[in-house]
Amino acid sequence: MRQALTCAVCAVALLSALGGRAYAADELMEQAKQLFEPIPDTPPAVEGVPSTPAMIELGRMLYFDPRLSESHNISCNTCHQIGLGGGDMLPTSIGHKSQRGGRNAPTVLNSVFNAAQFWDGRAKDLVEQAAGPIQNPIEMAITADHAVETLKAIPGYVEAFAAAFPEEKDPITIDNVAKAIAVFETTLITPNAPFDRFLRGDAKALSDEQRAGLKLFVDSGCASCHNGINVGGGQYQPFGVVERPGAEILPPDDKGRFMVTKTPDDEFVFKVPTLRNIALTLPYFHSGQSWDLEQAVGVMAVSQLGVELGAEDVRKITVFLETLTGEQPEVVYPILPPSTAETPRPQF
Amino acid sequence: MRQALTCAVCAVALLSALGGRAYAADELMEQAKQLFEPIPDTPPAVEGVPSTPAMIELGRMLYFDPRLSESHNISCNTCHQIGLGGGDMLPTSIGHKSQRGGRNAPTVLNSVFNAAQFWDGRAKDLVEQAAGPIQNPIEMAITADHAVETLKAIPGYVEAFAAAFPEEKDPITIDNVAKAIAVFETTLITPNAPFDRFLRGDAKALSDEQRAGLKLFVDSGCASCHNGINVGGGQYQPFGVVERPGAEILPPDDKGRFMVTKTPDDEFVFKVPTLRNIALTLPYFHSGQSWDLEQAVGVMAVSQLGVELGAEDVRKITVFLETLTGEQPEVVYPILPPSTAETPRPQF
Repeated sequence: MRQALTCAVCAVALLSALGGRAYAADELMEQAKQLFEPIPDTPPAVEGVPSTPAMIELGRMLYFDPRLSESHNISCNTCHQIGLGGGDMLPTSIGHKSQRGGRNAPTVLNSVFNAAQFWDGRAKDLVEQAAGPIQNPIEMAITADHAVETLKAIPGYVEAFAAAFPEEKDPITIDNVAKAIAVFETTLITPNAPFDRFLRGDAKALSDEQRAGLKLFVDSGCASCHNGINVGGGQYQPFGVVERPGAEILPPDDKGRFMVTKTPDDEFVFKVPTLRNIALTLPYFHSGQSWDLEQAVGVMAVSQLGVELGAEDVRKITVFLETLTGEQPEVVYPILPPSTAETPRPQF
Repeated sequence: MRQALTCAVCAVALLSALGGRAYAADELMEQAKQLFEPIPDTPPAVEGVPSTPAMIELGRMLYFDPRLSESHNISCNTCHQIGLGGGDMLPTSIGHKSQRGGRNAPTVLNSVFNAAQFWDGRAKDLVEQAAGPIQNPIEMAITADHAVETLKAIPGYVEAFAAAFPEEKDPITIDNVAKAIAVFETTLITPNAPFDRFLRGDAKALSDEQRAGLKLFVDSGCASCHNGINVGGGQYQPFGVVERPGAEILPPDDKGRFMVTKTPDDEFVFKVPTLRNIALTLPYFHSGQSWDLEQAVGVMAVSQLGVELGAEDVRKITVFLETLTGEQPEVVYPILPPSTAETPRPQF
């Protein structure tokens, strides 16, 4: 009798536990669906720019072409490497004549889903972004005129621009360079991460521990900024909402979005970065000063939420963040059209 | 009657011309087959190194990985770009902390067919070559130990080396790095150039003018050095057999193979470079000081053969050289395994 009773109690407890877990998982999934959105399988469009095969092909060539830099030694892919999570795994990038950039190179992967581009959001979209580093004197350091003159003196580009912009008489312009690169960049999306499969209804796509991490991520408040399709990329927030991190993480001379808006409220405000593929895009923060995702999670909790997370909770959140790694883009390395005797030469 | 006679004369002349041309084309093809050899469709083996899919895959990753440099900013592909004819279209490459290399980066394409590697032949094969630039203080500038330590601290490489060297207990060594890169490089061949099709018996693969250029190339003596499968790559010759070019083309402080052998006869001796894909690999010469293939042909004729070629002959030879451009390799950009908090960090 006693054994039977124990068994009955056990059975009830077990059913209740299973039911509770199933209910909690459902609830978590519903909550997640409200907060996040899966990466689509096919690239989205850039507003006002037609995404034709000729355009993507031209953009792919330009993205890898170092002749868009004054030295002919730096391409978009130098700092936003397709094979390195779309960044360069450096604290800050190495530009023209070994000058260092001011901020960590943001990942190009899924960047089309960000509400704005650059850490301070100074470009409204990928087209505006793409023309920036080409002309930045510490990055690719070429003038728009010189870039255009160079491309016009490469016969293969004359053909490729004509194919990409068939209705334009003089298609080689810096604006069209930016458009083609932007359209290619829209193809650099990473669908089908475990988290995307979870958001599409596959509860088993995340392990118990990963779901526990997601729950903590939501309940602790991380998801109030890191949400939407890019798990970030949609807001501006001060770095140090509750407590400013030390100068090694938040250098005092980089006032972030303030430099764009000149509004005192925007001091040390930055775009909330995407956490998509975050396990691939170390080092972390705009300063690129954290090489450890667990450390970065801990710093965020203290500075943004005023919470001192225990090691176990940090680990759980990190384990969840690793489920944001999607299928990396398969890009065939483009064969670039050769220069000729008339092409402007590298300057260094 | 007069008209008939004229027609008969014309017909004889025409037949004779056609016969003569056909005979000449056959003769030229036979002569070419004696001197040259087509690029095969499939990669050759590196002696003593098994070419398995796992090995090629590892080599492809290493080839594109900037973490094989001290700064984590320079990969093999920085100076030997798959998309730029296997070189970098710079006079000399830009290395660690923007130091300039001493000689023009030779093309990696078809380099497996060269009798030795580097302009001075100081590496006997691709395995010996691959480890060089990694450790050269003005190029990638990392020590062998530090490169190995870095790779060992990237979990994805621990797996990839184990797969590529399944019988070795401690497979991450600088020798194995070089072997994997070398095996990948054997896949970077460019078969099926018009000249290869001609060598395989398709007389129409070359136009009349291209065949005339080939004939000139052979008859003038170019082919006495530029021959074999790589149309070069098989001999050492002084630059300036007949007449030394000016200091801008042949800088007096680079004594070439003399620096390897210390034999006075080897002063200003260099490996005869391949002319495969030469239309893609400007600028020319070990100094990278000619940006114009026609100019380079003219310089060679004077300095190596003591012949002042007319503009028309230079053009014909150049038109022939353009038939050496083969099908460029289709390489999928590798997704590189991420660093971790334990991976040694870039030094700059």
